[in-house]
Amino acid sequence: MRPVALLTDFGDDDHYVGVLHSILVRDAPGLERIDLTHGVAAGNIWAASFFLRCAWPHLPATAVVLAVVDPGVGTGRRAVAVEVEGRWLVAPDNGLAAAVAPASRLVVLDPSTMALGCVSPTFHGRDIFAPAAARIACGVEPTTLGVEADPDGLAPCPLPDPQRDGSTVRGVVLHVDHFGNLISNIPASWAPAIGGMRAGWQHIARRVRTYSDAAPGEVVMLEGSSGLLELAVAGDSAATVLDLNIGDEVEIILPRQ
Amino acid sequence: MRPVALLTDFGDDDHYVGVLHSILVRDAPGLERIDLTHGVAAGNIWAASFFLRCAWPHLPATAVVLAVVDPGVGTGRRAVAVEVEGRWLVAPDNGLAAAVAPASRLVVLDPSTMALGCVSPTFHGRDIFAPAAARIACGVEPTTLGVEADPDGLAPCPLPDPQRDGSTVRGVVLHVDHFGNLISNIPASWAPAIGGMRAGWQHIARRVRTYSDAAPGEVVMLEGSSGLLELAVAGDSAATVLDLNIGDEVEIILPRQ
Amino acid sequence: MRPVALLTDFGDDDHYVGVLHSILVRDAPGLERIDLTHGVAAGNIWAASFFLRCAWPHLPATAVVLAVVDPGVGTGRRAVAVEVEGRWLVAPDNGLAAAVAPASRLVVLDPSTMALGCVSPTFHGRDIFAPAAARIACGVEPTTLGVEADPDGLAPCPLPDPQRDGSTVRGVVLHVDHFGNLISNIPASWAPAIGGMRAGWQHIARRVRTYSDAAPGEVVMLEGSSGLLELAVAGDSAATVLDLNIGDEVEIILPRQ
Repeated sequence: MRPVALLTDFGDDDHYVGVLHSILVRDAPGLERIDLTHGVAAGNIWAASFFLRCAWPHLPATAVVLAVVDPGVGTGRRAVAVEVEGRWLVAPDNGLAAAVAPASRLVVLDPSTMALGCVSPTFHGRDIFAPAAARIACGVEPTTLGVEADPDGLAPCPLPDPQRDGSTVRGVVLHVDHFGNLISNIPASWAPAIGGMRAGWQHIARRVRTYSDAAPGEVVMLEGSSGLLELAVAGDSAATVLDLNIGDEVEIILPRQ
Repeated sequence: MRPVALLTDFGDDDHYVGVLHSILVRDAPGLERIDLTHGVAAGNIWAASFFLRCAWPHLPATAVVLAVVDPGVGTGRRAVAVEVEGRWLVAPDNGLAAAVAPASRLVVLDPSTMALGCVSPTFHGRDIFAPAAARIACGVEPTTLGVEADPDGLAPCPLPDPQRDGSTVRGVVLHVDHFGNLISNIPASWAPAIGGMRAGWQHIARRVRTYSDAAPGEVVMLEGSSGLLELAVAGDSAATVLDLNIGDEVEIILPRQ
Repeated sequence: MRPVALLTDFGDDDHYVGVLHSILVRDAPGLERIDLTHGVAAGNIWAASFFLRCAWPHLPATAVVLAVVDPGVGTGRRAVAVEVEGRWLVAPDNGLAAAVAPASRLVVLDPSTMALGCVSPTFHGRDIFAPAAARIACGVEPTTLGVEADPDGLAPCPLPDPQRDGSTVRGVVLHVDHFGNLISNIPASWAPAIGGMRAGWQHIARRVRTYSDAAPGEVVMLEGSSGLLELAVAGDSAATVLDLNIGDEVEIILPRQ
């Protein structure tokens, strides 16, 4: 049986996540379950996409991902399962299903194939996505859970790509993590030799190898654990120190060659 | 082995939940464990009862529920296991054990039957409830863990029932969820045809099918995922917009027939 | 296979904990995983040590503990596995590895032994500690994961011991829990007969057996579930009522004999 990894914006303080787990155990006893996080801000497809991209390379090779951030639940947006790099991702077609990489197959989920009875218009995580993930984890052929469609038709992921313009690389802050680190969308490999980053057009950060290379209070730039450039302050929150947040711009001037 | 579902007010930031899981793994290796939530407000039997009711229909059929919200720990309140609709619920007899439905059997737990050594007067979750749940999950006959008693003697659940008075239905807010939705105690089936709800005697909400049927900023009423009427604002918190909270009254005027 | 218990300061709102679980499932499918807590304050070795000590007696006898609070990640501090009372604890050598009891064996982890490819300088939880815990859980001999060293060389745990001076016992608040209870470092067994405790040199608390023995609003002292003296207010936060916090001093006057 494949393991299932869960990612939602349900928070940990209601029964919603517990109900997803209950459905998985009900429909696939013995399943290995992994909580990626349920701390995505309500309805925030951007944040969910970021977490999914970061966790993706480290998931078990056969994992099924159950990702539910679904502000359009009950509307015409499609509920889908997509095959990506050999794994299956079950999610709403609102950008989240396209967060990681191009899909090789796409199945539009049809709850009537799962014989589940009534489907709530407000909780498809419980009534469509989790049952579908449980079935795929058990080896059910995903195409039997709905209708195949062209993977190119998926709604695009909202995460922006960085832009290179001559010697300038422009990016944005994708995420502020629990430690206050500001994680950008600029791959560290784009700027291997640079000495600094401008953030908010006012700071220039020195590049270091790890957090504690910084002097007390110093803002530094480093390659984070997902290969993206990030800004950090040792023992403090870079987000607070710099007064920057998700979506704010960062800029790098590459050295002349 | 039966799966065990946990529900507590321990929060996620101490070691208490981890210790419950440790006891379950110690006493029942290989057990499937489900966290319903540990975000119940401290000592709040009302909230715990609400979560338990909502999760109950979706639990695996053989689940054992370990529910510990126990402000009277160490006092004369009984620690019990009750059989409800074929499942076993292990909880303090403070209203929580009666939250879901009438029990068909009641066992007053006696820690001396479990050969556990010392029982702390402040952490029965660890020293009585979790060990009992582990044993029941493993197939131990619950009556060997204590003394059977009359299930009618259970302390009543604090959740109030809605009241119908002619064409008026009066209820209260049972819960404000992570998204700010105000969930009432009025079953949607009581008011299938109505056009609106008064909340705080000042607002009338239009009835819709799902969250995104609302116009921006509009307060709407809909059938939530547990079959109860709730008030919602698409992309915002109805609790904040309406300034309502748990226990506040809501009212519905049914159409004349 | 041994169960693995996780303890970190990663919080529940990023993908970091999910990635640790992913590594464990990837490297040790079928492993039993226990989350002790991920609510340790960022970089707080003191708090992590406290949680580890409290949970330790209740862990499965063969548990492997994966404890990552690692402000010095990527620097010269050692990544270690220590054998303590028959269990293995995998942690940075920054005080956390010495939190519970003297180690009988110490292995300095060498990531090259695990054939993991690239090791990020900022996320050793993912790239060293979790892979090591997975291997030990699967029965790999820990000494093959690095080089044995003298356990006496471990960095000391920051938690202070209480001091007895004649009839006075001086301690500090080790932890404020989710309920606002102030947990000291004074074992209840040191003061079996006393009538009270001074906290902040202004309050004297009556000793009781359990929380609800207190009168409304009364500050009481009791033996907590880990055998340490704590201050509590029934239905309220002792930390708020007393305006005390972690590290603050408490004092007990023992009766003359």
